[in-house]
Amino acid sequence: MPMMNRLGAEFIGTFWLVFGGCGSAVLAAAFPGLGIGFLGVALAFGLTVLTMAFAIGHISGCHLNPAVSVGLVVGKRFPVSDLLPYVVAQVAGAILAGGVLYLIASGKAGFDIAGGFASNGYGSHSPGGYPLTSCFVAEVVLTFMFLIIILGSTDPRAPAGFAPIAIGLGLTLIHLIGIPVTNLSVNPARSTGPALYVGGWAIQQLWLFWVAPIIGAALAGVVYRWVGGDVSSK
Amino acid sequence: MPMMNRLGAEFIGTFWLVFGGCGSAVLAAAFPGLGIGFLGVALAFGLTVLTMAFAIGHISGCHLNPAVSVGLVVGKRFPVSDLLPYVVAQVAGAILAGGVLYLIASGKAGFDIAGGFASNGYGSHSPGGYPLTSCFVAEVVLTFMFLIIILGSTDPRAPAGFAPIAIGLGLTLIHLIGIPVTNLSVNPARSTGPALYVGGWAIQQLWLFWVAPIIGAALAGVVYRWVGGDVSSK
Amino acid sequence: MPMMNRLGAEFIGTFWLVFGGCGSAVLAAAFPGLGIGFLGVALAFGLTVLTMAFAIGHISGCHLNPAVSVGLVVGKRFPVSDLLPYVVAQVAGAILAGGVLYLIASGKAGFDIAGGFASNGYGSHSPGGYPLTSCFVAEVVLTFMFLIIILGSTDPRAPAGFAPIAIGLGLTLIHLIGIPVTNLSVNPARSTGPALYVGGWAIQQLWLFWVAPIIGAALAGVVYRWVGGDVSSK
Amino acid sequence: MPMMNRLGAEFIGTFWLVFGGCGSAVLAAAFPGLGIGFLGVALAFGLTVLTMAFAIGHISGCHLNPAVSVGLVVGKRFPVSDLLPYVVAQVAGAILAGGVLYLIASGKAGFDIAGGFASNGYGSHSPGGYPLTSCFVAEVVLTFMFLIIILGSTDPRAPAGFAPIAIGLGLTLIHLIGIPVTNLSVNPARSTGPALYVGGWAIQQLWLFWVAPIIGAALAGVVYRWVGGDVSSK
Repeated sequence: MPMMNRLGAEFIGTFWLVFGGCGSAVLAAAFPGLGIGFLGVALAFGLTVLTMAFAIGHISGCHLNPAVSVGLVVGKRFPVSDLLPYVVAQVAGAILAGGVLYLIASGKAGFDIAGGFASNGYGSHSPGGYPLTSCFVAEVVLTFMFLIIILGSTDPRAPAGFAPIAIGLGLTLIHLIGIPVTNLSVNPARSTGPALYVGGWAIQQLWLFWVAPIIGAALAGVVYRWVGGDVSSK
Repeated sequence: MPMMNRLGAEFIGTFWLVFGGCGSAVLAAAFPGLGIGFLGVALAFGLTVLTMAFAIGHISGCHLNPAVSVGLVVGKRFPVSDLLPYVVAQVAGAILAGGVLYLIASGKAGFDIAGGFASNGYGSHSPGGYPLTSCFVAEVVLTFMFLIIILGSTDPRAPAGFAPIAIGLGLTLIHLIGIPVTNLSVNPARSTGPALYVGGWAIQQLWLFWVAPIIGAALAGVVYRWVGGDVSSK
Repeated sequence: MPMMNRLGAEFIGTFWLVFGGCGSAVLAAAFPGLGIGFLGVALAFGLTVLTMAFAIGHISGCHLNPAVSVGLVVGKRFPVSDLLPYVVAQVAGAILAGGVLYLIASGKAGFDIAGGFASNGYGSHSPGGYPLTSCFVAEVVLTFMFLIIILGSTDPRAPAGFAPIAIGLGLTLIHLIGIPVTNLSVNPARSTGPALYVGGWAIQQLWLFWVAPIIGAALAGVVYRWVGGDVSSK
Repeated sequence: MPMMNRLGAEFIGTFWLVFGGCGSAVLAAAFPGLGIGFLGVALAFGLTVLTMAFAIGHISGCHLNPAVSVGLVVGKRFPVSDLLPYVVAQVAGAILAGGVLYLIASGKAGFDIAGGFASNGYGSHSPGGYPLTSCFVAEVVLTFMFLIIILGSTDPRAPAGFAPIAIGLGLTLIHLIGIPVTNLSVNPARSTGPALYVGGWAIQQLWLFWVAPIIGAALAGVVYRWVGGDVSSK
């Protein structure tokens, strides 16, 4: 596909990841008596990726996440020359998602963006009050495992066609573990979208959600080639 | 298949979408202590589509939704000449579903149709009190993305056989985001079914749940052809 | 496969359906603060069928339900000569499941079988207090749609291999709708298993959970052949 | 694949099973108001296996569980000569997972490992207070059925590629039934990981979670060959 089509797909897909995941958190998680809770938010994030991987996987590969693109470069599945435009399209989609979600959510009486707007945070901005070290370790480990799932399930030796299910439900699983720690990122674009609207602490803490996921993803690119063999050379 | 078989399948399938989705909301969502909440209702709506797409997809294509049929016409996947009979069959199935659900639900002491009967609404009839603008934007955006999922996952380049999973769980995701806003439609037939039994405000607000989903779906038909390429010409 | 192997598979599979579905209800649904609720029970029932359809579908066809066997006979997918042994194996597996579940559950201080032991009921034994008419209609309609899902997703024109997902998650959906009405049967064997241990009202009301599911299933066998075409003649 | 690659995969996969499953329980299950409950923990455990079976199934077979390895030996699907190294890699991965989880969880003010750290237990350490007999029977029966699912869904006659879905969601189902009884093991490695950090009673009760799962798994290896036929000889 031409690069413009691929960037369009990454833009729409990352819009959906942030709008759907953060939207479910902001609009539905804590609805009195009937809210979907962290379980529903975890399902929502995962299903944004599952649905997009089936819908646009054949156009762009459906990364929707700068850390995923980095991990695929290190794992020799994606050319480094395409990395920057992909990341730009992803972040742009995430920013639009934050804006549309703000438009909808702010219509409700009593809405206050200081409630967090599904931003990621550590220390006093961790949902469960986890300190920086816990948050850093969690984001590295969970992104590492996310990339192991991605690299493994898209390996030519894995069953064909099922990778969107493995990867999407893998992201659900990752949220089931980690929402209380950092509100769960493993995705710098997802963190950047809402943070721009919240400002202040959300911007100040944003570095962690770029650094830790990229470290975890790059490590997985190396480890999968050790354990699984170098698919690119086959 | 002959048109009568296809219309029969659309009738049964849309019956199931409305009976199952609205039925889970009316009968089970708020059951004391053990109720399924918005998460269970979101799962139920999605599974009506997942199950029918596997069961009748080979008969009628399993649209179950006038907005989906419109989006497929704009996306050049469905002939405009078949649009009207499909919509009539869908709305008829939805109306029957409302009737059967009323028969079951009204048997319980204390049942009151003024509780909403799972109708869609905005403003004072939005579950979370969202104003018209929020509701309109949400229905347009969510139907747009629903059609992107449908058009993408049924693209000949996507993995064969998996589209019912992507589309069904995509509808679950859409409900996880939007039930608090409009009680979630993205489907004019689904809105029409219960509204006819509730009457009053539900009829007066019904226009939005025809207009917004059809706008979102038609936009997606255009955008997918831009981004994904025109499949019909291949 | 020889009939003994097929009956062994139906016995094990129906054991699993009743042990898993009723077990989740009895042991885990109402656990203080962390219980799985009706949503978890619905998921459990569906996953018993999903897992067994993949595990023993190639041995016995994985009916696990006398109503399903009847519907498949009417739909010309299963020979009437095999119906009786299948039903006997299914009911036997269900009875063993009730016994093993009783052994586990009764070890807990305060266990009282009069709590219902996941039996099906109507009127004063309906979880939500629904009268006989509501319960009868619900069981007929839900079994009808269960068989439409089964007959459609196992149609040679449907995507190969996915039927266990459609059928299993279809049973989850059916429970999301109907647990508050009858505690949800659509399966005479599933109703018979726990009822034998509860006795009294559970036995007296058992007729409905044989009659209504079989009516719904047989109707679906007729209707699917009208709408979908007679697969057996192809 | 060379044995070292296979052991690396089992190490990573079992790390993920214990980190993800126990992590969701320790970090997210009881979060005030929004916690994922037993339903979320059940989903998390199942998704660790679903994701790893797609990601590393082609490397090691993805056992992640000494009882599974034993059951596959008895069922003639896995050579007994490979059993010991597999079990060592699995237990090592589980121990690392306990350590990383401890590092993250202990950062939170008020964390107390005496809360159980997701260890398995019976009697006074059963979540629901179930006695030894109930716990033993539950672990034997549930591991038996887990292996029936594994042996059946990986049978050459079952639909190709779907086994990770059947097995992963099967483990979810098993947790939906049994968490209140023993906190659910069916996996000696999963029990050993957290127990080493808790010490005391968790170590003293560990024997049951080696003995009962291995008995259940071995029985299933025998029974599946009776009912399903001896696949190894085909």
